[in-house]
Formats: sequence, structure tokens, C-alpha cells
Amino acid sequence: MNKAVEDKIKELKSYLSKIEYLGSALAVFSWDDMVNAPKKAVEYRSRVTAYLAGELYKLKTSDEVKKFIDFFDGVKDELDEVITAALDNLKREYYQTKKIPDDEYKEYTKECSVSLAAWEEAKNKSDFNIFKPHLKKIVDFNKRFVEYWGYEGNKYNALLDNYEPGITTEKVDKLFVEMKDGIMDVLNKIKKSGYTPRIDFFTKRFTKEEQEKFSKIVLKKMEYDYEKAGRIDEYMHPFTTNFGNKDVRITTFYDENDFRSALFSCIHEGGHAIYEQDIPDDLQGTLLNCGVSMGIHESQSRFYENIIGRSKPFWKYFYPEATKMFKQFEGVSFEEFYNGINYVEPSLIRTEADELTYGLHIIIRYEIEKMLINDEITVDELPKVWNKKYKEYLGVEPSNDAEGVLQDMHWADGSFGYFPSYALGNLYGAQFLNKMKKDMPNVDKDIESGDLSSIHNWLKDNIHKYGAVYKPSELIKKVTGEELTSKYFIEYIDKKFGKIYYK
Amino acid sequence: MNKAVEDKIKELKSYLSKIEYLGSALAVFSWDDMVNAPKKAVEYRSRVTAYLAGELYKLKTSDEVKKFIDFFDGVKDELDEVITAALDNLKREYYQTKKIPDDEYKEYTKECSVSLAAWEEAKNKSDFNIFKPHLKKIVDFNKRFVEYWGYEGNKYNALLDNYEPGITTEKVDKLFVEMKDGIMDVLNKIKKSGYTPRIDFFTKRFTKEEQEKFSKIVLKKMEYDYEKAGRIDEYMHPFTTNFGNKDVRITTFYDENDFRSALFSCIHEGGHAIYEQDIPDDLQGTLLNCGVSMGIHESQSRFYENIIGRSKPFWKYFYPEATKMFKQFEGVSFEEFYNGINYVEPSLIRTEADELTYGLHIIIRYEIEKMLINDEITVDELPKVWNKKYKEYLGVEPSNDAEGVLQDMHWADGSFGYFPSYALGNLYGAQFLNKMKKDMPNVDKDIESGDLSSIHNWLKDNIHKYGAVYKPSELIKKVTGEELTSKYFIEYIDKKFGKIYYK
Repeated sequence: MNKAVEDKIKELKSYLSKIEYLGSALAVFSWDDMVNAPKKAVEYRSRVTAYLAGELYKLKTSDEVKKFIDFFDGVKDELDEVITAALDNLKREYYQTKKIPDDEYKEYTKECSVSLAAWEEAKNKSDFNIFKPHLKKIVDFNKRFVEYWGYEGNKYNALLDNYEPGITTEKVDKLFVEMKDGIMDVLNKIKKSGYTPRIDFFTKRFTKEEQEKFSKIVLKKMEYDYEKAGRIDEYMHPFTTNFGNKDVRITTFYDENDFRSALFSCIHEGGHAIYEQDIPDDLQGTLLNCGVSMGIHESQSRFYENIIGRSKPFWKYFYPEATKMFKQFEGVSFEEFYNGINYVEPSLIRTEADELTYGLHIIIRYEIEKMLINDEITVDELPKVWNKKYKEYLGVEPSNDAEGVLQDMHWADGSFGYFPSYALGNLYGAQFLNKMKKDMPNVDKDIESGDLSSIHNWLKDNIHKYGAVYKPSELIKKVTGEELTSKYFIEYIDKKFGKIYYK
Repeated sequence: MNKAVEDKIKELKSYLSKIEYLGSALAVFSWDDMVNAPKKAVEYRSRVTAYLAGELYKLKTSDEVKKFIDFFDGVKDELDEVITAALDNLKREYYQTKKIPDDEYKEYTKECSVSLAAWEEAKNKSDFNIFKPHLKKIVDFNKRFVEYWGYEGNKYNALLDNYEPGITTEKVDKLFVEMKDGIMDVLNKIKKSGYTPRIDFFTKRFTKEEQEKFSKIVLKKMEYDYEKAGRIDEYMHPFTTNFGNKDVRITTFYDENDFRSALFSCIHEGGHAIYEQDIPDDLQGTLLNCGVSMGIHESQSRFYENIIGRSKPFWKYFYPEATKMFKQFEGVSFEEFYNGINYVEPSLIRTEADELTYGLHIIIRYEIEKMLINDEITVDELPKVWNKKYKEYLGVEPSNDAEGVLQDMHWADGSFGYFPSYALGNLYGAQFLNKMKKDMPNVDKDIESGDLSSIHNWLKDNIHKYGAVYKPSELIKKVTGEELTSKYFIEYIDKKFGKIYYK
């Protein structure tokens, strides 16, 4: 590599570091907003957030960025994999934002915050009409953005690409149809089996302190370093955030009348957190020092939450721990406990769904988003379409909009294209599991003995250590040798739930 | 006012708002650093802090600032008091920073952080020699800055002006000599009296929870809104920070073996916090939306901590509350309790000093700083000079450097000129008290009945509501009709401690 290129790379890294620093400052500010900030500060803080976000936007779309892109375009052959990926990433974001007229984007972010407030009110009053005019605007903005950005094939591709770069609507269509059929097949077999696990013992009283203690035991076993490189705090809606790889924080919510709620949210967020803690230091200054996509991120959190956290080997180790700590489980057998953890029941609320039916909630949202963007339905028709799909896929029907179309905030803040990530995360996860079991045939034994480090090491070596260097589609192929498929997930759910319910 | 000026003022306010926003982001980040951040994040976070501080510096010294200054210099007559003050303030800071060569300032901030680390090590090992070479550099930097800035009279004026604009070394010399004589006179009378209050009951065991509860009762009475516009957190060294006037946070440290420690630090920080919460919204966008100086800020915290919090009327109300809550005070009479609160004993550590002798700790530091800057002593001689002055003024002598010259971090991070603020705060406070009692002759009755709102309102109306619009010297005159004097403080201590000890 010649000296001029080397110097320019140093310059680039120093520039991208600034973006990382400001991003971290904004992230700390947002975390503080949710976890700490007093009520009266809301208005002032929203102005600070807008300012920081604006400055971050400026850094990402500056003339300097354009100059970096132009320079490196001329010396492509001299760049290594990481710098090439960093530039692809930078370029993608630069042109995506540049294609939207500045004023329109400003108007959009303003409308998003108005729309969020309207959604909140609408949800509280369970009245879709309050939210409708705002959602219409948000959808229209997104449709225009799709045109600005351009697309091949389905218009929805342009949105999907923001969250899961490289995947297409055509591929997701196929995956989700298979996934839906697979889930509904298992669900029908479960219904026919007539078996219903006991879950009464989970809804006794569990103090916050007890729950916190138990969650921490699990998180420690998972090797999430919350002591020296993280924190656990409380927030209504659990989330993970990070400022670099050495300060990765999770939040959880303790429901004192349910043993499962905080525990599984901690395991889920712990999965996200481990991913970020494992990102190598040397990806700093590339903007690739983070999880590669929402879908891969969800694959990690769901891997821990479901594939590990709701598995038999896991509870073989933790059931004795749990019964030791909680008198509430006296007289509950291991089988009862394990089956209860895997209780399946179609329900109305996505965030409360069980492992099996969760995907159907996502597929419904995906189908609706696609239709909206392609003008196949209108915003006015949303509640009707929503309720019909819930009836059809899950066999349940919302009695009001709050427990139906208004339940999620994603559309209110314009996150069209985001929902599929959750279900893709399930598919990635099962495919990773398949490969992991081939690489480590005895992994279940490790889990049974409370040793989760082999899993962690496998995930670190195969996924985490790459940060965002490879696109999701590249990564899954690199790790498993195959493109993303629904096969392993369908096998997994049939095998797992079959054993509990119908085999 | 003509339209062009009006428009320019709007522009100015919008520009200064950006400085406020970035300042708030940095302050949140720093608070989070101290209260929350995990250990491993230290290195990365210091880079983010440096970045944010650098951006803030750029905003304050940009060409845009110069253009504002030049524009408004031409239309001075059309500006109101607030905008005039805002511009004075802006100009002052702009030229102060511009006078120091960029590279030199960068080197200085780097040296400060190295020096801080060396100081920490030196303090831990109680070895001044570890810190000495760094302190020499810091002192040399400050001496050069003094030359860059320029000064009239004593060189030390240039440093003093950074923390207490408008006051001079010549004035402080006079005030501090009087203060020292006053304190030493009272101290001698106390010694001669032979009376020593009981304090054994304060050092029983008080749980954190009990202490927190009691502190919150007091803070609520003080009208510090920690629920909707603040927070109370734990940190080793208590401090107050704020992000606007609606998010003003204090920290405290609970010593479970001392009733007094957290309580009085909460009252002290509460005094700072109330000041910031009282700043009117309409000072936003002027950089005057904060306390005017370190000295005035300390006058507020010390007013609450000492003048109110260690007063007889205060404990007439709170003693019954305290004895109700704490069995530890069983059999302790009101007089014993009140006298114990005002126990006087010359000691080695500034932050643990009692109300009376605290000023002597400050005066020693002030005299030393002045001599250093004026080349009257060298850094090598510091421990000797320090120990000699402690012996002379306080009658105690450090047995090692950790409890002597190494105890404070102020010199390590270059805060020369800062120390006098603390003692000036005592003088301001006593002078305010004198005026307050004239305005509200029955204020003691209010306090005795647990009503601290009249005090709060007086401070708000006379001091807080002005933010930083008036310089300290203007403010004290506006409020009390006199220049700052040591007279009221000396009267106050003689009267208060006389009653307890020797009258």
C-alpha cells in the first residue's frame, strides 16, 4: 500500500472516530433520557437530542465524506476487506441521505415526533382515528423516499435494505411463507394434542430482588460482563444500548407477579449485549464496530432467549438453582417446569408472544407494510386488515385498536422495513444452531453442566468478531455454508414442540 | 430596536443555544462517567469527552462568535441589559481563549490529564515527589497564561478573574486578612472556654436507607425539586450538575457511621441545585442561564449548609423529626444535639473542616497560589510552606503529604484561582443573611416552623432569578447596597459560636 493511501486511511479512521464519539454521546444521552431523566426536562432534552442528531447527520453527509469516497474509489485495489466494507457502508449511508432533499427530511423527522405523540394518545384512548392522519403522512413520506432511493423489483426492497442490507422482498416472501406454514402446522398439532402445560407456578409473587439475583446468575453464566463493562438498569421497555464495546448496558422490567418476564428479557438483552462486547477493538474508527444488522442482532438475542434459554439442557442446570432459590416452585417437577417455560398460546400482543407464534405476529406486519408501500391497501383499511390476519393466522381477534393495530410504535416513528428483522433473527438463529451442533456435537452436555462458554466462544469466533464487516447474506454463508433458509427453523420447532406436545 | 438588530439577536440566541445543548450533552456524559460508567470504559470515554470538549471549544471560539461580537459592538446602545451581559461574557471568554496559542492549550489539557493521574498516584503513595514535576509544568503553563491574558496589579488577578470576575487580589487580600483574624479570634476564645460539645451520638450506625429518607425530608422542605426536575444519586465526592434548569442533579455519599456526612452534603448540594432550578427560562440562549460565579454559587450552598442547616431555628424544627426517626439520639437533649452539630476542631482535611475553621484552609491555599504565581516560592518548597501555615493558622501539622499538600485535586487539573471562591462564598452568604434579616425580621420563626419557603423566595428574588446577568460585584451591591465585606461574616461567627462556647 502506498504512503498516500495509508495516510488517507488514518485520516478516514480519525474522521469516522468522530462519528463514533458523537454517536456514543447521543446514545448516553438517550439512555439517560429513558432511565434517569426527570419529567420536567422532557422538552429541553428533546431539543438537545435534535441538536446532537443534526450534528451527527452533518458529519455523515459532509463534503469531507464525499472526498473520502472519491479518493478511495480511485485506489480500490489497494484496500483491505475491512476498509472496503467501511467505505461501502459509508457510501451507502451518504447517498441514501443525500438523495432525500434536506427540507423534506427535516419535515419528516418533525412529523415523526408529532406522530409518535399522536400514536401514544391513540393507544391510550384505543382510537386509531387519532393516529390515522399522522400515519398517512408517514407512509407517504416513506413512499416518496422509496422513489428517491430507487429500487429493483418490489418497492419494499428499498426499505428492507435499511435494516437488512442485501436481502430482498422476493427472498423474504419465500422464507416467510415457509415459516408461516411451518409455524401453523406445529400450532395445529399442538392444538390437536390437547395437552396444556401448567404455568400457574410462574405467576406467584417473586420479589424484584429475588428476580434480579437470579437474572444476574444467568447473565454471569452467559458471560455478559455487566460488572466492569456494562450495567443492568430498570426501564419499562427492556433494551440494550452501548457506547463502544466496553460499556454495553441492558435494561429490564421486573413484574413481581411473573417469574418469566424479567428473566427472559434479561437473557434476550444479554444476547444483544454479548454481541457488542465481543466486537474487537481494532474495528474502532470504521463504523463497523457494531452488530451488522437488526436481523443478525435479533438472531443473537433470540438464540440466547429461546434456543438456549428455553431449552432442556439449560434448565437441567438452572432448574435446581431456581428451585433452591424460589420456594414458589416447591412441588413442581422438572418436566412441568420445562414444559411450562414452553407454553404455547396464540395471543394478541407481539411482545408477549411465545417462541412459536412470535413469527406470525411479524409476518402479519411484514405483509401489511408491503401492501401499504405498494398501494395495495390504504391506511384507512389498516385495522380491518390487521384484525382479519390475526383471526386467520393466530385464531384470535383484537377487541380494540390498542391491542390490535396500535400496539407497536414502529410505524409511528417511521421504521418501515424494521419488523422483518425479528423473524429473520429466528431463521438465522436456527441455522446457526444447526452449524454449531455440527461443530460441537457435545454442546448440550456443556449447557447441562452450566458451562455456556463454548456457545459464547462459537458465536464470538463465527459472528461477533466480524462486527459489521460482512453483510448479513455474506455472513450466513460464511458461517453455515448456505444462504439463509427456513428449513432449520421449521425442523427446530417441530422437533422441540413435538417432544413437548405431540410426539 | 431596528429589525436588523432584532434578527441578529435571534441568530445569536440560536447560536448560543447550540453551545448550551452541547454543554448539556457533555455534562450528562460526565455525570454518567462518575455515577454509572463501568470501569473498562474509562479509556474510550475519555476520548469521547475530549472530542465533545473540543467541539464545545470550537463553538465558543469560532469566527461566527467574532462576527457577532463585531456586529453588536457597533450597536451597543440598542441592546438591553441581558444581551449586553451575554455579549460581555461571550467576548471575555472568546478573547481569553484566543490569547493562548492553540497548540499550547492542547498541550496544557493533555498535561492536565497526565498530571491528574500522577496526583492520584502521589496521593495514594503519599509522595509529593511523584506529583512535583507535573505540578511544576502546570504552574509554568498558568504563569504563561497570565502573561498572555495580561493583568493589572497582581499577576494573580488574571487567574482570579476566571472564577470570580471583577474581584481583585488586592480586595481579596484585605477580606481574607480580616477573615483570618476573625476566625482565629473566635477559635482562641473557643479554646479558652474549655467547652467541648458531645458528638459521640453522631457516629453510631445509621443505615443508608434511614439517612436517605431523612435527607429527602430536608431537601423537600428546602424546595429542591428532585422528583420532577432532578435526582439524587450516590458518588464518592458529592457534586451538583445540571442540564438546563429542569434537570438539576445532586450526588451524595452515605457514611453509615456518621449521621452528619450525607445530610450536610445533601443540604450543601441542595443549595447549589435550587439556584440552578430557579434560573428563569427566558435566559436560555444567552449562556447566562446559570449561577454567576463559583463564589456566588458557594454562597448559596453554604448558606443552606451552614447558616440555615447548622442554625438553632432549623434544628428546632428538625431535631424532633430526627429523634423521632433515629433511636440513636435517645437521651440526647436539644442543646447537646445543636452544639454537637457546631462542634469546632481545627483539622488537617479541608473537606472535613467545620464551619468556623473551613475558611483558614482556603486562605492557606490562596496565599500559596499567589506566592507560586508571583515566583515568591517554588513548587519544591510547597510541602514545607503548607505544613508551616497549617501549624500557624490551625495549630495542626500533617504527618504526611497525603493529608497535607496532596489532599486536593484542584492544582493537579490546573484550577488556579478557584480556591478563594469557597471562602468568598462564606462572606457573600453572611452579607446576604444580614440583608435577609432586615427584609424579613421574622424569618427565624418561619424556619422554626419548618417553613423554608420564605428563605427560598428571598434568594430566588434577589439572586437566583438573575442567573449570570450581573457580575458578582454588581450583584452583591444590588442586593445588599454594599460592596463585599468581611464584617457580617465576622459578626456572624462571633455571635453564633460565642453563644455556644463562650458567651
